[in-house]
Formats: sequence, C-alpha cells, structure tokens
Amino acid sequence: MTLDEQFAYLTKGCVDVVRGTELRTKLDRAATTGTVLTVKVGFDPTAPDLHLGHTVLIRKMKHFQDLGHRVVFVIGDFTGLIGDPTGRSKTRPPLSRDEIEANAETYKHQVFKILHPDRTVVDFNSRWLGTLGSEGWVRLAARYNVARMLERRDFRQRFDSGQPIAIHEFLYPLAQAYDSVALRADVELGGTDQLFNLNVGRDIMPGYGLEAQVVMTVPLLVGLDGVDKMSKSAGNYVGVNEPAETIVRKIVEDFRGSDGVMWDYFTLLTDLTPVEIEQRKARFAAGEASASDLRFELAELVARDFDGVEAAARAVDAVRTRHAVRVAAATGPAGDVPADLSGVPTVGVTLAAEPINLSRVIADLRFAASASEATRQIKAGGVKIDGERVLDLRWVPPGSGSYTLLVGTKKVARLVVAPPS
Amino acid sequence: MTLDEQFAYLTKGCVDVVRGTELRTKLDRAATTGTVLTVKVGFDPTAPDLHLGHTVLIRKMKHFQDLGHRVVFVIGDFTGLIGDPTGRSKTRPPLSRDEIEANAETYKHQVFKILHPDRTVVDFNSRWLGTLGSEGWVRLAARYNVARMLERRDFRQRFDSGQPIAIHEFLYPLAQAYDSVALRADVELGGTDQLFNLNVGRDIMPGYGLEAQVVMTVPLLVGLDGVDKMSKSAGNYVGVNEPAETIVRKIVEDFRGSDGVMWDYFTLLTDLTPVEIEQRKARFAAGEASASDLRFELAELVARDFDGVEAAARAVDAVRTRHAVRVAAATGPAGDVPADLSGVPTVGVTLAAEPINLSRVIADLRFAASASEATRQIKAGGVKIDGERVLDLRWVPPGSGSYTLLVGTKKVARLVVAPPS
Repeated sequence: MTLDEQFAYLTKGCVDVVRGTELRTKLDRAATTGTVLTVKVGFDPTAPDLHLGHTVLIRKMKHFQDLGHRVVFVIGDFTGLIGDPTGRSKTRPPLSRDEIEANAETYKHQVFKILHPDRTVVDFNSRWLGTLGSEGWVRLAARYNVARMLERRDFRQRFDSGQPIAIHEFLYPLAQAYDSVALRADVELGGTDQLFNLNVGRDIMPGYGLEAQVVMTVPLLVGLDGVDKMSKSAGNYVGVNEPAETIVRKIVEDFRGSDGVMWDYFTLLTDLTPVEIEQRKARFAAGEASASDLRFELAELVARDFDGVEAAARAVDAVRTRHAVRVAAATGPAGDVPADLSGVPTVGVTLAAEPINLSRVIADLRFAASASEATRQIKAGGVKIDGERVLDLRWVPPGSGSYTLLVGTKKVARLVVAPPS
Repeated sequence: MTLDEQFAYLTKGCVDVVRGTELRTKLDRAATTGTVLTVKVGFDPTAPDLHLGHTVLIRKMKHFQDLGHRVVFVIGDFTGLIGDPTGRSKTRPPLSRDEIEANAETYKHQVFKILHPDRTVVDFNSRWLGTLGSEGWVRLAARYNVARMLERRDFRQRFDSGQPIAIHEFLYPLAQAYDSVALRADVELGGTDQLFNLNVGRDIMPGYGLEAQVVMTVPLLVGLDGVDKMSKSAGNYVGVNEPAETIVRKIVEDFRGSDGVMWDYFTLLTDLTPVEIEQRKARFAAGEASASDLRFELAELVARDFDGVEAAARAVDAVRTRHAVRVAAATGPAGDVPADLSGVPTVGVTLAAEPINLSRVIADLRFAASASEATRQIKAGGVKIDGERVLDLRWVPPGSGSYTLLVGTKKVARLVVAPPS
C-alpha cells in the first residue's frame, strides 16, 4: 500500500485523528527505517462478553496489525487491584491477581478472533503503575493542571453542580496517560468517549522526553434497533461468542437501522476498504443489490471473522433457506403481506398430516397467557384466520402459503405454511 | 497544674484551637491513663537561620514538653528530595540525603536552645511518604475532594484568576496530612497561615481509623519595625544565633512597635503565664515600670533562652550602660532633643584630645557615598552643626552633650559626646 492508502485504511471510520499529519510522519518514518509502530489500547480489567460494539475498536487495532504494526492490549488492572480506594463500598472489592489473569484469558479468547495473536502484546498496567513510586506519582501529577482536568465534561458537570470529585479521580486519567509513557506508544486508540483521556497521554509524553502519541477514536456502534448504542443491557447486540447462525440471523432479520446505519456497519465491522464500500453503495443505488443481499454479505463477513469461512457459509445457507421459505410463503395466495416481514411476528409450520394446535400457536406468540386461555378466546369467537372466524381448536391449512392470524382486534401474526419437504 | 491551668498555658497566644473541647479531653485522658500526647510540627527541609518569629511556634512546642508531652519535629524532606517535580526549574534541584541530614543538624542546634532534647523526636517524612506506594497514594488522594481543596485561599485565587495549579500541588497538603496519620498525632501545631493544611490532617485521620488531631495555630510575629511580619529579608528580625548583646540591643533599641506589640512579644516570646503578663501590664499602667524597663526585661528573658542566665545578664549590663550614657548625653545642654532618640541616627563619641574626623562620621552615617564625597560637601558649605556651617574637616566639640548634625537640607543625625571616661 502507498502511504495514502495506508492512511485511508487506518483512518477509515475514525471520529478523531489527532493529528493526521503526525500519523503520516510516523507511518512514513516506520516505512523508511523498517520499524513498526507501537499501538496502545486500554481495556478495563473486568471480563465482559464482547459484542460487535467492542469489535469496532478491536478491528481498528487489527488494521494496524494488517500493516505490520505492533498492538499492545493494555489491561488496566492497576485500578482493579485497588478496588474502591475510599474503602466505603462493599460492592467493589479489589480483584485478585488470579481473577485478573482469568479475565485476561477471557479477553484473549474473544479478541484473538479478530487480532493476530503474534502481533499482539497483552500487558498489565500494574506492572509500571504499581511500581511508580512516590516520586513518580508527584512528578506525574505535576504534568497536568487542575483547570485543564476540569475541562473533562463529566468533571466539569459535577464540579459546577456541587457534586464532589475525589482527588484520586484526577490521578486516574494521569495513570492511564502514563501507560503511553511506559509503553512509548506511537498511537493510542479508543472510543470517542475517551478522547479527553487519550489526549492527556498525548500531552504529558513530551515532558518525559517522548514524541507525543497520535490519538485516534472510533465511534460508538449503534445497536440492531438503529437507535441506541449497542449494549448487552439494551438487548440490541450481537455477541462475539454467539453461534455463527445466531450472528447471521440477527444481522439479517433483527436489524432495524436505516441504510446509513447499514453502511456504518460495513465501515466499522468489516475490513472492506472505503473504495470497496463505495462500490456496494453504487450497486445498491442502481438496484443491482437489495438491502437483503447486503445484509447477508455483511453477516457473512462478520461471522467469518469469528468462526471462519466455512462456518460462516453454513450459517448463511441455513438462514437464507429459512428466509427464502418465508419470503416465498409470505408472498403466496393470501396477498396483502407487509413489505417488512419482520414487522409482524411470523410462525413457520410445514404442511403435514396432523392439524395445527391453534391454542398452542397463540400461546407461543404470547397473544394469550396460556394455551387454555387461548382455547377460551377461540371458543368465544375472538380468533380469525384470513378474516374468517375460527371455532375449531385444531386448524387444517388449505395449502402452503401465508395466512393472517388475528387474535382479538389488534394482535396480528403471519402463519407461514411451507410445503412438505 | 490543674486541667484548666494546663489548658490556659497551652492555648496562651494561640490564634486557632480546633477544638478546645477535644484538647481538654485528650489532656484529661493523658493524665488519667498516665500517657503523653504526641505533638507534631512540620518544618521545611531547607536550613534557615531561625529568628524570633520561628521561636513562637517552637516555644509552643516547648509548652507541651513542659507538661511532659512528646514533640515530633517533622522535617518535610519528602518534597525536598523531589525538588521541582516539573523538572523545569534549574534552581530547585533535589536536596541530597547528606544535605538534608546537615540541615537537620542546623535545626537541632537552634531549636534545642528552646526545646528539651530528651522529649523531642526529630523525624523525616520521607520515611513514610517515600514508601507509601501507588495504592497508598490513590487511597490518600481518595480522602479529599477537589472543591474542598480549592477552598484554600491561594488555590482559590489562582483558580479564579486563571493561573494554573498543577495537580501535584493538591498532593502536598495530603502528604503533609498523612504525616499525622503515620505519627498518630494527637495535636498538630503550626503558624496561622497553615490552618488549612493542618485541618486536612484532622479531616483525613478518621478515615484511617484514628481520632482526629487537635489543630492549634500561633500568630505570625510582627517584626521590630512594628509593622511587617518578622523576616530576614525585611531586616526587622532578631536571630536566634546572634550574640546575646545583639539580641538585647535590638530589642531595647531597635524596637519600634506599639505597646500592644510589646505585650504580644511578652506573650509569644516568653514562658510567662497570662497572669504574670497581666501583672506587668498593671505596673506599666500605674507608671511603676517604664517601657524601657519592660524592654530590658523582655530582652533578658529572650537572651536567657538562647544563651543562658549569665550571658543574658552580661548582655543586659553592657547595653544598659551604653544606653545610660546616651540618654544622659542626649538630654544634655544642646536641648531640643527628640523624645525618641532612636528616631534619628545617633553617633556616640567620647571627648578626647583628638578632633573628630567629620568626613568619616558623615560617610559612616551613609549621608555620603564616601569620605571624600563628604569632604566635598563640607567644603561646599553643605554641613551644619547646631545650625552653624562647618567648613573645617576636623571638628572639636566644645564639650560633652548632644549636637545636631545637618547634611544638606534633610539628613539629620545626633552627635552625642560623652565626657572622658
């Protein structure tokens, strides 16, 4: 790659690059001298189940590795080893060395799905922060001033509203900044919400006789709902450790975001170059690829990273087959099918000798609290299929196709009946 | 002494006692349990020539020793060992261990003129601050918050006026406070300008499972000019290491303060009890003792502390004799003598066979830059004695007594001529 291509690849999808000219200089120098850059990223020492939101940052680390650079995955165990320094909280006891090591293994298991293990150094900041010494702490604290620290938005808000900020909270950004000194980082990556902290590292390095690191941030990923930040608690996530078929199914079927969010996913969740993404946009705009085609491609690319080419292909096949059946069924004789299948709950069944237990279907859809309540609703005349009241608890579909189930006046579902296999 | 008498003795002359009730409780408990209190005082690690201003605090330490308590003289070498933590200043290099030990000896030599050596522990705060460890620093910093630290007046003023406060400056009051934790101090003494820092120690101790120390401050001593704080640079000081006669002479002759300042000196620079000081005030008010009598007594008490009873008595005799000669001379035939002799420079000479070298006298008074310049002024007719122009460089006084010397139109001195001895 030329320097321009490297620059484009590395800055793809980034929110902040402080500063681009310095990154170019560092890349150019590395190429000229045959050296590699040290790229630092910090992670907290608790062990999360990583989801796609986390992979945006991890993928950016990989991009540097793709160009031969060395990534240091810093586990911020220093603060974890201290726990709650005020000693007031019983719920934040210090982590033991064993717990931190176990969490590091959990991290490795997940991040090495994306990162190249042989170009990744996993390190622990207690190694240098724990031995910094009294003089080291004073010198570190001398490198930054109170007014600048209070420019960090959360500090400023608390300060202005009279909520206390303990002085050790000022030490943590400095400690994190010192990680860059200890590692002689060329580049630090982080989420866009970390920009202030990353810049502290940049600011203090020259005082230690080092060239300031370049700071690069990646955006927070929007969840499958297309609205909120992806997070486990919001339920709008795809987990790194989920089975390949689940990953593909969630991306193809559960995604509710706009086209813009889909392109963000391409940018942030794949290694496609900006040019390759533009090509897809053009095909989509020209009607040569459907939104469904693009989601399948995206899903396959993501699943490949975590589970390999074959598993991803199998997962895509499975989901595509099920999907094709549904689409075929939904566009069958019943007509008036919503364009977005996923907007209405769908129950897929196969034509068989046995009639369908309607009470069970209604209860499974959570349209009734139980099968027996569903039975009462059918008997009371409150259930219709394709506009016809159904009074028989056991329903025999007239053939394959899509049928509209109405329970009461508002609860609607699709019954998709596939032909016998 | 009763508890009340102890309390009165210890709080004599103090500006702040936080809190008196706690001091009583501690004194009472010490008496009941047969234990002694630990009284901490911090000093900076540079080696000053101590003057009377410093002795106010040292004397308050002695008062605790007089009642059997244990005083810890803490040399704050921790910061001295670091020097300028920003590394920017070439003028504040770190002190070496040898330099700090040498400074400690200088301190001891001076303070043991007042303190009881056997009830004084000299300690160095690097002993516990140097080994506090990263976790210790974070826990310490967690004990205090930013808003409270900014209540310290100098911090607040700098913050409000946009002058930077480096974050390590917030660590120093905490480090000093931690001295009280390490020493399990019952009482901390300091100058009134240290009240904030002393209270930080008080505030953090309960978090370390200790009873809060009592904080007591003593006032800053006004200098001999009666206006500014006593300091070497202002020239209004009496040094602890000066010869006894100089000490007495400065207090008797150079003091320009009001009666109020004189009583402050009695309170702050002697061990007289409040009752004994009241007795002297009454005698002075009744005209039974003159201001001069009181200054001589004060001077003798001060000199005794530093140089012993005999040396103090000899110094007082010497100054008193010289003083008597001047007063006698000054009130001689020349009349119109200012009431306050010391308001005008005075040159004392003795009648002798030799005429007086006027040029030399004028130069010694610094009324001219040199004797030769004084000679030019005399020859130009710019010098008068008792209103008469003097053109002769060698002046023969007509007899003993006081004469007014006028050089130019503004420089006035008294020539006091004593009879031959």
